[in-house]
Amino acid sequence: MNILGRKSTKVLVAAALLAGLSSASYAAEKVYKWKLATTWGPTLSPFIDAPKNLAKMVKKMSNGRLIIRVDASNKHKSAFGILDMVKGGQYDMGHSASYYWKGKDINTLPFTTMPFGMTAVEQYGWFYYGGGMDLMQKTYKKHKVLSFPGGNTGNQMGGWFRKEINSVDDLKGLKMRIPGFAGEIMAALGSTVTNIPSGELYTSLERGTIDALEWVGPGMDIKMGFHKVAPYYYTGWHEPGTELQFLVNQKKMAKLPKDLQEILKSAIKLSAYDMYVQNYHMSGVAWAKIGSDYPNIKIKTFPKSVMDAMKTANKKLLVEKTKGQPLLKEILDSQAAYQSKAREWTKMSDYLYLQDNL
Amino acid sequence: MNILGRKSTKVLVAAALLAGLSSASYAAEKVYKWKLATTWGPTLSPFIDAPKNLAKMVKKMSNGRLIIRVDASNKHKSAFGILDMVKGGQYDMGHSASYYWKGKDINTLPFTTMPFGMTAVEQYGWFYYGGGMDLMQKTYKKHKVLSFPGGNTGNQMGGWFRKEINSVDDLKGLKMRIPGFAGEIMAALGSTVTNIPSGELYTSLERGTIDALEWVGPGMDIKMGFHKVAPYYYTGWHEPGTELQFLVNQKKMAKLPKDLQEILKSAIKLSAYDMYVQNYHMSGVAWAKIGSDYPNIKIKTFPKSVMDAMKTANKKLLVEKTKGQPLLKEILDSQAAYQSKAREWTKMSDYLYLQDNL
Repeated sequence: MNILGRKSTKVLVAAALLAGLSSASYAAEKVYKWKLATTWGPTLSPFIDAPKNLAKMVKKMSNGRLIIRVDASNKHKSAFGILDMVKGGQYDMGHSASYYWKGKDINTLPFTTMPFGMTAVEQYGWFYYGGGMDLMQKTYKKHKVLSFPGGNTGNQMGGWFRKEINSVDDLKGLKMRIPGFAGEIMAALGSTVTNIPSGELYTSLERGTIDALEWVGPGMDIKMGFHKVAPYYYTGWHEPGTELQFLVNQKKMAKLPKDLQEILKSAIKLSAYDMYVQNYHMSGVAWAKIGSDYPNIKIKTFPKSVMDAMKTANKKLLVEKTKGQPLLKEILDSQAAYQSKAREWTKMSDYLYLQDNL
Repeated sequence: MNILGRKSTKVLVAAALLAGLSSASYAAEKVYKWKLATTWGPTLSPFIDAPKNLAKMVKKMSNGRLIIRVDASNKHKSAFGILDMVKGGQYDMGHSASYYWKGKDINTLPFTTMPFGMTAVEQYGWFYYGGGMDLMQKTYKKHKVLSFPGGNTGNQMGGWFRKEINSVDDLKGLKMRIPGFAGEIMAALGSTVTNIPSGELYTSLERGTIDALEWVGPGMDIKMGFHKVAPYYYTGWHEPGTELQFLVNQKKMAKLPKDLQEILKSAIKLSAYDMYVQNYHMSGVAWAKIGSDYPNIKIKTFPKSVMDAMKTANKKLLVEKTKGQPLLKEILDSQAAYQSKAREWTKMSDYLYLQDNL
């Protein structure tokens, strides 16, 4: 309410400036209303919780000065168009996974996860202390978009298969939903690879559009019902620390007052870490009762011959795909160097401890 | 600067209220100046970085309305008196480790870590989604202090020993700096156990006041120089996911405006997660060159007979110490139940993956 009207407000602004209240703090009273587009459906917990928690935190911390509306994929109908919509300014922010637009810009792929790559904490080390954030901003600069870690799934399960995989031959002709670099590997081994939005996954598997899919882990997968049509559930190799991404339109960010920029950046970082813990928790809870609640699920690891073929294909593809791609090579080399260093410590600390305490 | 002086400011307040700026947002202009006491010395990275980063974040997010001065232990001269100083109101906040005051209140012990207990991500799951935060606030309520996770060290190394440990007999009469429940176990096995502030650790070891100590991990330990006087460096069993604590005086928190409370709580949570990643990074970097830079360090794991004795002592002590301590029992039971659930998932995800990718 402004009982003095517009003119008096102007007088007040002048008075405020004169009285020593900084113009910044006065300007801070302006309310910014933002829109965020996600790849996920409206109830796809914990993925959808990350942007929702972000919006709640930002509202409270900013005392209502920055309001973010979260649009799920059923609203904007463009699950894999998040980068374009944030780039184009239709949305101020997005929440998705960087490897979903590898077809548009191959350099964005490694910021989600890499097969045989880093675990969640190793990858956070790389992002925040090992040069990863710089490489990510360098990559996204040409899209005029800022990119931030958006929540980690931890180590993902290798996926749901209608039939048991006994040899590399069983991968030939297999129609599988599997994104990122893992998809390139499966294609190299003869599978037909595709990506499908979460809302259509179950139907695609049930109707035989695909024979297999990987999604996330027990916390998210079992609610999707995949086990009803594809009971072979394989342990993971391909996404050891999948990090989602928050995207922010660069110009929109620059227009926010400095304190709101700080609030937004902190809330992004915090809701990402929180999602990692939340998903770990959900998977722990689901896994603990998988045997009793779903006795028909067959837990499997890929045979050594299959794993070896995947590793060989991975090495070969890393050489092929980086040819004539200096930025991609720079990113992948940086990740590999960090991983080999961090993994030694992971082995001495968590791995040895777990070995003795399983 | 206020060129109109005090009287004019009052007029302005009235004008601001009339003009429709809410009293809350005007009141928010008040600057709160807080003091935080830490257990750590002024350069003890990354422990001291957690409260320093917190203070920086809070200042920026609050647009300078909440300023936190961080006092290292050389300033307040009371490294282990943090709970008392925050309780008494000499300090608004503290940063320390909950198990340091087990002598005052045994119930505070398990919120840091437990021998053979949870890893960092399992423990964050317990804190935020498994009932841990409620149990921690219940415990600290009688001290009129709020307690929050304050940064995880990850899996700690088992410590530095002057002599090799070949049998349980070698632990008898050993003078060792080791806090928390692990100290109780070592005492039960015949060691003389003590706690010493970080600044005095090296001298104590060098002069023979103690024969052994555990500190954190390679990232922090090697800078301390322990290897020069105690070259046997053992892998960990006793602190699988040590969480430091931020303490806040309850009344002081209640006096902050709601938006500053939110900013403070978010910054606490974020700087804690960040410290986990920072310490993991530091340990990875230090570990990668430990062999080449410090060839005299002898990396060891405790013999099976010693580990078995520690596990047996742990089980016995858990029964003994919880007798007549219903809250302690409630906390430890809650942790154990969560751990057994989460560990199954840790095994299927990170552990199996690492086994194949070391």
